[in-house]
Amino acid sequence: MTSNRAVVYQGPGVVEVVDTAYPTFELKDGPGVNPANVGRKVPHGVILRTVTTNICGSDQHMVRGRTTAPVGLILGHEITGEVVEVGPDVEVLQVGDIVSVPFNIACGRCRNCKTGKTGICLNVNPDRPGSAYGYVDMGGWVGGQAEYVLVPYADWNALKFPDRDQALEKILDLTMLSDIFPTGFHGAVTAGVGVGSTVYVAGAGPVGLAAAASAQLLGAAVVVVGDLNEDRLKQARSFGCETIDVGAGSVPEQLVALLGVPEVDAAIDAVGFEARSQGHGADAAEAPATVLNALMQATAAGGAIGIPGLYVTDDPGAVDLAAKVGALSLGLGTGWAKSLSFTTGQCPVMKYNRQLMMAILHDRVQIAKAVNATPIPLEDAPRGYSEFDAGAATKYVLNPNGYLPH
Amino acid sequence: MTSNRAVVYQGPGVVEVVDTAYPTFELKDGPGVNPANVGRKVPHGVILRTVTTNICGSDQHMVRGRTTAPVGLILGHEITGEVVEVGPDVEVLQVGDIVSVPFNIACGRCRNCKTGKTGICLNVNPDRPGSAYGYVDMGGWVGGQAEYVLVPYADWNALKFPDRDQALEKILDLTMLSDIFPTGFHGAVTAGVGVGSTVYVAGAGPVGLAAAASAQLLGAAVVVVGDLNEDRLKQARSFGCETIDVGAGSVPEQLVALLGVPEVDAAIDAVGFEARSQGHGADAAEAPATVLNALMQATAAGGAIGIPGLYVTDDPGAVDLAAKVGALSLGLGTGWAKSLSFTTGQCPVMKYNRQLMMAILHDRVQIAKAVNATPIPLEDAPRGYSEFDAGAATKYVLNPNGYLPH
Amino acid sequence: MTSNRAVVYQGPGVVEVVDTAYPTFELKDGPGVNPANVGRKVPHGVILRTVTTNICGSDQHMVRGRTTAPVGLILGHEITGEVVEVGPDVEVLQVGDIVSVPFNIACGRCRNCKTGKTGICLNVNPDRPGSAYGYVDMGGWVGGQAEYVLVPYADWNALKFPDRDQALEKILDLTMLSDIFPTGFHGAVTAGVGVGSTVYVAGAGPVGLAAAASAQLLGAAVVVVGDLNEDRLKQARSFGCETIDVGAGSVPEQLVALLGVPEVDAAIDAVGFEARSQGHGADAAEAPATVLNALMQATAAGGAIGIPGLYVTDDPGAVDLAAKVGALSLGLGTGWAKSLSFTTGQCPVMKYNRQLMMAILHDRVQIAKAVNATPIPLEDAPRGYSEFDAGAATKYVLNPNGYLPH
Amino acid sequence: MTSNRAVVYQGPGVVEVVDTAYPTFELKDGPGVNPANVGRKVPHGVILRTVTTNICGSDQHMVRGRTTAPVGLILGHEITGEVVEVGPDVEVLQVGDIVSVPFNIACGRCRNCKTGKTGICLNVNPDRPGSAYGYVDMGGWVGGQAEYVLVPYADWNALKFPDRDQALEKILDLTMLSDIFPTGFHGAVTAGVGVGSTVYVAGAGPVGLAAAASAQLLGAAVVVVGDLNEDRLKQARSFGCETIDVGAGSVPEQLVALLGVPEVDAAIDAVGFEARSQGHGADAAEAPATVLNALMQATAAGGAIGIPGLYVTDDPGAVDLAAKVGALSLGLGTGWAKSLSFTTGQCPVMKYNRQLMMAILHDRVQIAKAVNATPIPLEDAPRGYSEFDAGAATKYVLNPNGYLPH
Repeated sequence: MTSNRAVVYQGPGVVEVVDTAYPTFELKDGPGVNPANVGRKVPHGVILRTVTTNICGSDQHMVRGRTTAPVGLILGHEITGEVVEVGPDVEVLQVGDIVSVPFNIACGRCRNCKTGKTGICLNVNPDRPGSAYGYVDMGGWVGGQAEYVLVPYADWNALKFPDRDQALEKILDLTMLSDIFPTGFHGAVTAGVGVGSTVYVAGAGPVGLAAAASAQLLGAAVVVVGDLNEDRLKQARSFGCETIDVGAGSVPEQLVALLGVPEVDAAIDAVGFEARSQGHGADAAEAPATVLNALMQATAAGGAIGIPGLYVTDDPGAVDLAAKVGALSLGLGTGWAKSLSFTTGQCPVMKYNRQLMMAILHDRVQIAKAVNATPIPLEDAPRGYSEFDAGAATKYVLNPNGYLPH
Repeated sequence: MTSNRAVVYQGPGVVEVVDTAYPTFELKDGPGVNPANVGRKVPHGVILRTVTTNICGSDQHMVRGRTTAPVGLILGHEITGEVVEVGPDVEVLQVGDIVSVPFNIACGRCRNCKTGKTGICLNVNPDRPGSAYGYVDMGGWVGGQAEYVLVPYADWNALKFPDRDQALEKILDLTMLSDIFPTGFHGAVTAGVGVGSTVYVAGAGPVGLAAAASAQLLGAAVVVVGDLNEDRLKQARSFGCETIDVGAGSVPEQLVALLGVPEVDAAIDAVGFEARSQGHGADAAEAPATVLNALMQATAAGGAIGIPGLYVTDDPGAVDLAAKVGALSLGLGTGWAKSLSFTTGQCPVMKYNRQLMMAILHDRVQIAKAVNATPIPLEDAPRGYSEFDAGAATKYVLNPNGYLPH
Repeated sequence: MTSNRAVVYQGPGVVEVVDTAYPTFELKDGPGVNPANVGRKVPHGVILRTVTTNICGSDQHMVRGRTTAPVGLILGHEITGEVVEVGPDVEVLQVGDIVSVPFNIACGRCRNCKTGKTGICLNVNPDRPGSAYGYVDMGGWVGGQAEYVLVPYADWNALKFPDRDQALEKILDLTMLSDIFPTGFHGAVTAGVGVGSTVYVAGAGPVGLAAAASAQLLGAAVVVVGDLNEDRLKQARSFGCETIDVGAGSVPEQLVALLGVPEVDAAIDAVGFEARSQGHGADAAEAPATVLNALMQATAAGGAIGIPGLYVTDDPGAVDLAAKVGALSLGLGTGWAKSLSFTTGQCPVMKYNRQLMMAILHDRVQIAKAVNATPIPLEDAPRGYSEFDAGAATKYVLNPNGYLPH
Repeated sequence: MTSNRAVVYQGPGVVEVVDTAYPTFELKDGPGVNPANVGRKVPHGVILRTVTTNICGSDQHMVRGRTTAPVGLILGHEITGEVVEVGPDVEVLQVGDIVSVPFNIACGRCRNCKTGKTGICLNVNPDRPGSAYGYVDMGGWVGGQAEYVLVPYADWNALKFPDRDQALEKILDLTMLSDIFPTGFHGAVTAGVGVGSTVYVAGAGPVGLAAAASAQLLGAAVVVVGDLNEDRLKQARSFGCETIDVGAGSVPEQLVALLGVPEVDAAIDAVGFEARSQGHGADAAEAPATVLNALMQATAAGGAIGIPGLYVTDDPGAVDLAAKVGALSLGLGTGWAKSLSFTTGQCPVMKYNRQLMMAILHDRVQIAKAVNATPIPLEDAPRGYSEFDAGAATKYVLNPNGYLPH
């Protein structure tokens, strides 16, 4: 029996790397598996030997104890791997293919998938539209921060890289295709970023940095990134962004200093519900509506706000009663007076990943540098989680099977 | 000197018809005129003899005393008229033309106008992008519930009807082109309504009814309209809509009864900030976020919400402190989980009015019947305001110069 | 062994109904089957008992001997059926479901399918992108003018009707979802038809009539249909279209008489390569470029031309050498001066069929009446082909298993 | 009286710089002025002192004698200038502003302008929709290869640069905003170029190079440029394009060598009606359909072809009768089988110029370098025309008033 080391949530603040079961073509019972999904056959799946699997900011929500994630949940939804087994219904993929796996799990057979809305597939999560690997309330598909992982509906979901050697050479860039690069790109697209746009990105974590790089790739004239964390702002400046320390004054005031006007054409919320008020560091209280309210002020009339940052329906650890049920106090009147539009939700990764792969393979974008991709061994995942949570300007890439040199 | 009778706001709950000045090609000082606009030359304007001018739900916000509108403000932004004088810079329009005037005033020379965003013109309102006739904080352009009115930038703003006799014959339909028909249509378009859509419209006032008729024109499979007012719901049923009494149960529950599912593809908020909770009649308390929260529940994942209903930045008469500054407690987590998008703001009338005129002239839509257009003499405007405020299922069309028989 | 009567091409001008093999989950060798497809396994398929299957104008190209279709080819790509067997990889469909089958065969696993371009699937036809049932050079998938038919990649391709009884009640409308309704709709959409458009449709055969009905459903102000066949023009008038006899004068001249101007906003070519010059009846010579050249003249500057009408790469029976290789003498200078755009190709049926089904089920469109759908027994197919070829204003619906009363 | 030296067409192959009249706010009679435009008042105009004005490939069509351009026509439609006089109806522009002038003349008051279709304005050219400065059959607006030029409807047409010093510093880039940069960008946009696209540009003249630079700005993965002129191909390689010599083999064959596949996602025709067959140099015969037929072969199924290259309705100097009336022998069957779409016509410059200006001002694109912009004195215009016609890989920028150092 092949071993399968994996990263597991063991309670607030605690992740460990433990031995877990090697995948089969069936979704077996386990922590976080929806009862209606237990025993589900997966003949359309492939088993991957993981090439890379990244730690994501949305994993942190669970690890910080801000969700109802159960102890024992195997984490990880940013997966790139090599096909080692194919199910009987797989027709296109072959053993040996290197593929990127969208974090959204989608069936390719429901109404939403048929119209490209793979972030809200109707068939994979009994609770609600949309699913992901290794995530609370997402159906129970086993996470991929592991040596091996099962990918269902693989012909539909997986993006095959055209050349194995080229793929491994650019793997630190390509590994971002499973989530944060398309997610940041979706934020930019839904914010209406185009050639010549002025753009403000709230948040300089990996998704914010990916949104900024995406805005550049889309031809933005200037990209401004705001955060409280100077290391992350420095990272943003490293690839040509302007930056503002949101603790040092209002966003519109600081935009005036950079652009001559207090507003941008397009804005992206890459922070989400764990936003903090704009006091500095430890003094900053959680203030879940603060980012969206600032973006409405900082976006010019007729603009759009892309919201890849996660907002939740239940947040038991929130600062107040309203936030506990996902309600935010939004100054919608300001947005209405400016005819703003807003787009929320998971990025439908399949809509973008092939074109972003092409941009990477032809050296049109350096996403790994932009987000400071840093490979670490799978066994060091607890350190990666801890440093990332402490605000490291780093995107940690786990390397479970030694495909990458460290 | 030609007389110019006009409808004037005289304080909360009070409108009167009084003698006012005949327009000239200059914006003179008066109640509500922005100081920076006083004395502004309007050589690009035309003077219209008003054919029809409608009472709008957004006029009611002022008349109810819910705004800072000054006493003496001449009301009216829904204007259809006959050109009686042209300014020296007018090249296209001619005396005798019958034209529809978009309620948005736009210059046709700024960045926003050049990209079709005429609802947020940068040159006509010194306070903020966007303007309208006879409206508080909109620059001070004199209202059109009057015998005569000045229309600036007339070659750009006015939509000429191709044939005078045909226009007067269909005038009760065509008069809706100045505001509520495009506004309702914009709500439907931004909600993503297309052929085969299921649609829910919150609010059965004139804009809601126009949104419902627009959804039908766009090919919607079924349109459901919700309100607390049975007369207005009956009006919605008169042209083929399904209806729900929002005081009788939750929207999703009632959708199940009609559609078999608790959600629609597309939803339109035709209520805005004066929304009431879903108790019945006098018991219903004002609850400004109630409509948007209900729409997030009632819209299927991947859907969109069009928000033509007005949300304001300042609402001194609001029920609580948050609402006074235009802040709403929105369950954005629900919307995010469903990947919903939201479009707010004034309808850019010029984007739609020509095509909607064509639909009217070729008998593809009966918008006057849908909203129960009812002509009354200008001098009866106070009665029209009063009855409309009391919930009449009627769109009042003022007839200042006898173009219409009563 | 179950019998399987089917319509077979037996040479120019000859179709017969013969006994053929009952389908299995494998594409076996036979007339017109691409060698690379012989023996292809279809575990993802379903076997349908055909409810309805229509005779299409594009079948006529083959039956007239204008293609290289081999004798013995089983015809039919407009298929609605009841699932009687499901392959082992089918997950969503169940025995007893009534489904509409897009005439395009698509895999749901290639780059094009993943972006909704199901008319040019890369995996089903070894010769080129795109495939269809029962059609020459389309891979060899067996036609559906038969009692039973195999539908590959069925979870992806088939559109399930929500209710069996309702489906059978509206079956003459729903049967048009497999091809001509979406095809006509695609023509209208790609021609830019929207609310208030003026539209010209060249050709009053079933696709032209479906395009006209689609334009109405999309809110067109007026739809003009042109043809040489008075019976078909009468059919167009039956649902509110204007018509012109293209033998009686130029299209622009006749548009002036109807619309006051010589041009429309949007034009649709529902004729294709077998177009005839505008002489009357038997005098009309074949003139493959005549329709497109007329449409460039009749479309207003800034307009678009949708081209659902088929143009071929090889036409051995064409009038001249250029046409034999699919070359047309097009007055592109006229189109360029007007900034026209052009969209060609097979309709990607899956992009539209669900929403059109909704419009049918909610009685928003009467497509069966518009195209004069007429059921006939499967055994009468030869008569149907013959009458249709002679210009009958009829859409023949074959009824192989008695689901419809005659 | 101020002098006004200008470039004038004096017959096939001959241009001269002569003294002409200083402009006034009226379109006076002269060579090429449409009689219906003679005496037209232009109170909405500004008079510019020309900062830069470029020689365009479309000027060459006239100078080669391929059109009916009259002797004495003042040439030039690529204009950047400083406002020195404003007409009485001008409200926004002021003396001293530096502005870019779209080569399309548009009124800002007709149906087409109101929907952004400024390339086909209905009010400026009595012959047909659309107009330009200094061009045959375009209404007779006086050309701008001169010291001074009149710009009508100036508030609508002109794009003001935000800062005078910055504008003059980047003037060799900004001067491309009047035509070739937006024209190339429009070609790329209408070809569907986006992030990750593979692109083929036919023609390495200034528009082709601008299209290539635009495709890069839009995020294309790889841009291939084809031409017969090695100097121009070298220019394309200078900013990162791949190139192919179209005389050395078919486009698909050469694409295979570069990309591994014979087709691209998107193709742009930057050649137009004076295309030559793919023999080398002097041996190459004119073959007007050759580029479009090659592009249909070289574009992948589902792709689009943008056609900024000019195709004309009358070409008296063409190689054959069909081409003389603008008819091309196009293999549309190939395009149809691939579901290709095609967009023709003048670029509506106002749709793009502001955003491209922003990209220039923020150093996101080096368009002057890409097209090898080279300033020369106005008096050297004849040499510029001659060298450009001989195939120089140079975009000549005339400098009539010494704003640029040479």
